[in-house]
Amino acid sequence: MTFGVASRGVYAIATTPFLKDGSIDFTSIDRLTDFYEESGCTGITILGIMGEAPKMEPDESRAIVKRVVSRAKVPVIVGVSAPGFAGMRSLARDSMAMGAAGVMIAPPPALRTDDQIVNYFSGAVEAVGEDVPWVLQDYPLTLTVVMSPGVIARIITNHPSCLMLKHEDWPGLEKISKLRAMQKADELRLFSILCGNGGMFLDFEPERGADGAMTGYGFPDMLAELIGLFAAGKRDEAHDLFDAHLPLIRYEQQPGIGLAIRKHVLKRRGIITCDTQRKPAQMLTPAARAEVDYLLARLARHDKRAALFE
Amino acid sequence: MTFGVASRGVYAIATTPFLKDGSIDFTSIDRLTDFYEESGCTGITILGIMGEAPKMEPDESRAIVKRVVSRAKVPVIVGVSAPGFAGMRSLARDSMAMGAAGVMIAPPPALRTDDQIVNYFSGAVEAVGEDVPWVLQDYPLTLTVVMSPGVIARIITNHPSCLMLKHEDWPGLEKISKLRAMQKADELRLFSILCGNGGMFLDFEPERGADGAMTGYGFPDMLAELIGLFAAGKRDEAHDLFDAHLPLIRYEQQPGIGLAIRKHVLKRRGIITCDTQRKPAQMLTPAARAEVDYLLARLARHDKRAALFE
Amino acid sequence: MTFGVASRGVYAIATTPFLKDGSIDFTSIDRLTDFYEESGCTGITILGIMGEAPKMEPDESRAIVKRVVSRAKVPVIVGVSAPGFAGMRSLARDSMAMGAAGVMIAPPPALRTDDQIVNYFSGAVEAVGEDVPWVLQDYPLTLTVVMSPGVIARIITNHPSCLMLKHEDWPGLEKISKLRAMQKADELRLFSILCGNGGMFLDFEPERGADGAMTGYGFPDMLAELIGLFAAGKRDEAHDLFDAHLPLIRYEQQPGIGLAIRKHVLKRRGIITCDTQRKPAQMLTPAARAEVDYLLARLARHDKRAALFE
Amino acid sequence: MTFGVASRGVYAIATTPFLKDGSIDFTSIDRLTDFYEESGCTGITILGIMGEAPKMEPDESRAIVKRVVSRAKVPVIVGVSAPGFAGMRSLARDSMAMGAAGVMIAPPPALRTDDQIVNYFSGAVEAVGEDVPWVLQDYPLTLTVVMSPGVIARIITNHPSCLMLKHEDWPGLEKISKLRAMQKADELRLFSILCGNGGMFLDFEPERGADGAMTGYGFPDMLAELIGLFAAGKRDEAHDLFDAHLPLIRYEQQPGIGLAIRKHVLKRRGIITCDTQRKPAQMLTPAARAEVDYLLARLARHDKRAALFE
Repeated sequence: MTFGVASRGVYAIATTPFLKDGSIDFTSIDRLTDFYEESGCTGITILGIMGEAPKMEPDESRAIVKRVVSRAKVPVIVGVSAPGFAGMRSLARDSMAMGAAGVMIAPPPALRTDDQIVNYFSGAVEAVGEDVPWVLQDYPLTLTVVMSPGVIARIITNHPSCLMLKHEDWPGLEKISKLRAMQKADELRLFSILCGNGGMFLDFEPERGADGAMTGYGFPDMLAELIGLFAAGKRDEAHDLFDAHLPLIRYEQQPGIGLAIRKHVLKRRGIITCDTQRKPAQMLTPAARAEVDYLLARLARHDKRAALFE
Repeated sequence: MTFGVASRGVYAIATTPFLKDGSIDFTSIDRLTDFYEESGCTGITILGIMGEAPKMEPDESRAIVKRVVSRAKVPVIVGVSAPGFAGMRSLARDSMAMGAAGVMIAPPPALRTDDQIVNYFSGAVEAVGEDVPWVLQDYPLTLTVVMSPGVIARIITNHPSCLMLKHEDWPGLEKISKLRAMQKADELRLFSILCGNGGMFLDFEPERGADGAMTGYGFPDMLAELIGLFAAGKRDEAHDLFDAHLPLIRYEQQPGIGLAIRKHVLKRRGIITCDTQRKPAQMLTPAARAEVDYLLARLARHDKRAALFE
Repeated sequence: MTFGVASRGVYAIATTPFLKDGSIDFTSIDRLTDFYEESGCTGITILGIMGEAPKMEPDESRAIVKRVVSRAKVPVIVGVSAPGFAGMRSLARDSMAMGAAGVMIAPPPALRTDDQIVNYFSGAVEAVGEDVPWVLQDYPLTLTVVMSPGVIARIITNHPSCLMLKHEDWPGLEKISKLRAMQKADELRLFSILCGNGGMFLDFEPERGADGAMTGYGFPDMLAELIGLFAAGKRDEAHDLFDAHLPLIRYEQQPGIGLAIRKHVLKRRGIITCDTQRKPAQMLTPAARAEVDYLLARLARHDKRAALFE
Repeated sequence: MTFGVASRGVYAIATTPFLKDGSIDFTSIDRLTDFYEESGCTGITILGIMGEAPKMEPDESRAIVKRVVSRAKVPVIVGVSAPGFAGMRSLARDSMAMGAAGVMIAPPPALRTDDQIVNYFSGAVEAVGEDVPWVLQDYPLTLTVVMSPGVIARIITNHPSCLMLKHEDWPGLEKISKLRAMQKADELRLFSILCGNGGMFLDFEPERGADGAMTGYGFPDMLAELIGLFAAGKRDEAHDLFDAHLPLIRYEQQPGIGLAIRKHVLKRRGIITCDTQRKPAQMLTPAARAEVDYLLARLARHDKRAALFE
């Protein structure tokens, strides 16, 4: 399975399910893999920040890659961000050997200037190998690294193996427009843009030039439907669907507790068995859980996928 | 006019209207003051961050205070945050002399530890005088200063003149719950909590214990109605109203360009004459303006206050 | 008095002396102005960060500019950094009208990308006017804005009125070398580089290409002598002099309390009357003061300028 | 071998030597271990930030622990900081089983409030086990987490297994004084304080109450001698020795390139074979290397340990 500069649709940012004792729940991984595919996802991204990747041991990371890659019928991208290039290379090469479609690389938080960012990715590509297709992760809110359109253009131009941008800037709509304008002016080659931020701006990102979403919101089936509506030119219907989900999307998009909400929803939907996170982690209070459930109940009036209670 | 530990409702965070040349637009200030009152606001906060306070000269600040205080029939709170305590004192004393109800003080970005924060506010209160009622501004997203419930409790306990918390943490629902729980356990005296963040979580904040909102969203009339619905126990109707506005609230809550959106909406509503900001400032692109207008048009189907076009 | 792209020597970063009640001590300002000149300084920079500029009211700033400019026989540069361009312009134009040689502008802390930085200075130059000579302040440790050599080159190329770089990066020796190499390769026009950081690396900066120092260390006479020794090719003697002062330079270079140490030393030397800072400020503990005095006593064995006690 | 609340002297922060290809150089590890002991170090800390710990694979970390612990005749402390508590526990338990004296734990960069910091260490101690002696690492310059004396006191009071503070605040002299004052006032139990920051303030830290140093400066023999001079009450001689080294200490204390300088010096001294760092890494330019060598040559006039050239 491969991905490319024309990849579209929804790449699910997969959570990593754990059993109550913190060990990896492979049965839930299988269910989650199937669920993403059945939801219409065109790809799956594993071992990202929201996949709790930094809390895995190297052999656990490989076991997860193997499990997902061997089951999925869509391209699987593996997050390989690491403090050292040796570890990054090792996981990237092992993942590709197991059948991954590519890898995703985020910049480390200390980078500041354009040159520092561009040079970092040159080192990273040298490390993983120029033959490994990869996704550039742009996530300033968490990583504190701000990439201008010009920097992204330099990275994409420098590295033919960079096929996709995971766009997660905030605010970020103008960035998409600028990058697409650079392409139209022939200053930049083709590449795919999938958007993150939990989907918070997915009602406008496709019109700005995004090819879809790469995020882990608990209703990937809605995300896929939304992208389909935009592709079909049904703008108002897309917004109607989006607006029904926005209260929950917004609630999930809170830093720190977002993953707890996401796992709670996936558990409610019957996809994963436990909502356990590896420590240190932020948990939902009973009040927060009740608020999420209230939002789900309200959502169910518009979208029966959210009807999780009787 | 005074405010107190039992203040409720909506305190509008007032933008500062400018003419095209960047000079203060006093006519629009008058209209804005009237508009906030007619919208049901129970107070007005001027010269906050979104009021472009750091871009004012001292005499301009005083002219704005004088204008608003002499016109408003609700309490006016004046943002007096400043790099030096001498300037803070001077603006606070002058504002009170002109009839302001109190002042608002935010922590400077360099503060980190609990003690640093607590000591800063001791110095600030010593500077402005213990007789000046004040609002504690908690705004980590922009100021990078994180105040735990314990720190807020220490500040409130230290300073009887602190009557209100402008709550703007993100995520922040648990903070409201914890502070109110401390009060129930008699560990903390009464104080008012009004919430900011553009209203992004105002569908749950009242139930957590907030007394209302202090924010500058372009539809303060909606905010006031929403607080009223919660006060009347009409939870579902409150959420219906909130959900209709959330797409616009969310769009406005983008760092950097939020003020441009807010001024654009206020201009569309006919309240201010120009959407000029003092430089340096971020402007809306035509694409962004069109998106805001589309959101307004969609909102108008549910809320006729948004019907700004024919 | 003017300064230019070939300015050399020591520009003293002037502290602002206050009386015990926090009012400006103009008598000490006069003494300080004379002292800097008698110490061999080739220029004076006033109203910088260490001059407590953000704690001044606009009329105070102008009074200080007027006092120093009318007394000094060397070029005076005025720090005009401000949150708004209107205030920056106003102080810059007023200062030039009073006879200042130029202004100094620092980037606001929120800037991240190369383009953001370059665009900010375009706006600033438009505001103050292209006819006003200015110094670019590069001070990442305090301002958190990191400027690569490439960004500095873009700013210098964009703005003929930028005549000097106040270099205060840490680490920063390579930055000087790179900028000078760009000039040798004809990629960059001439400009002066004066170094800050309290002089912490002034034993190597001249050899890397710096034209001197712009810092406020309490012994500007030593700084001037040091630059002279380097200019005369007396490398080892320069290092001997520097090394004798390094224990004190290092002690003074502590963030937050550095200004208290500097004012303590200037008071010990009889230049300023009080070591008062405007609040909020960090004070020296008795233990710290005793440590500074011990360092002065040790220094006096090598440099009689430090013999302040009998 | 154990360490305790009364541990004194110098704990060397060990670099991790690599061969040119980036693989671990165990022969140099042995030489380094012997060198630290022969230099008078009373302990060795391995796998810290300057030991490039985040760039190691888990099995490599264990191989390094095993090698050093089995050779050293002084207590060995192992850095176990990790994004997840599971990985932290695993390395801590394995290290103790191999004979380590204890572990060192640093706070993750996201922590801000006192409570967040205190709670993090409660989780960490629960994870590694209350029976594992540990060192609290306080390093705001790199980690951006600022711990007040009060927070350190809470952590030490909460956890009897915390025996030592690696003090690396900047500025930090007052922090030592405050903690020791709390002990004198019986508000805090005994614990050891060893200071980092490359030794930049080791001429005053012992008098403030520090028990010694924990740092990786290339002349640990000098550090040990310095601590001995202070213990013997020879203040002026201690300062003479310190001042001779300060130009090099200062040069080494530059963020980012400090490790390159340290490895260069250790290679010059014949202790490690290569100065290779794992990528990404900052290298010394020829100009910087020449500056270090010049500083070594100057130092050699006062301290023959620095006479590395003929």
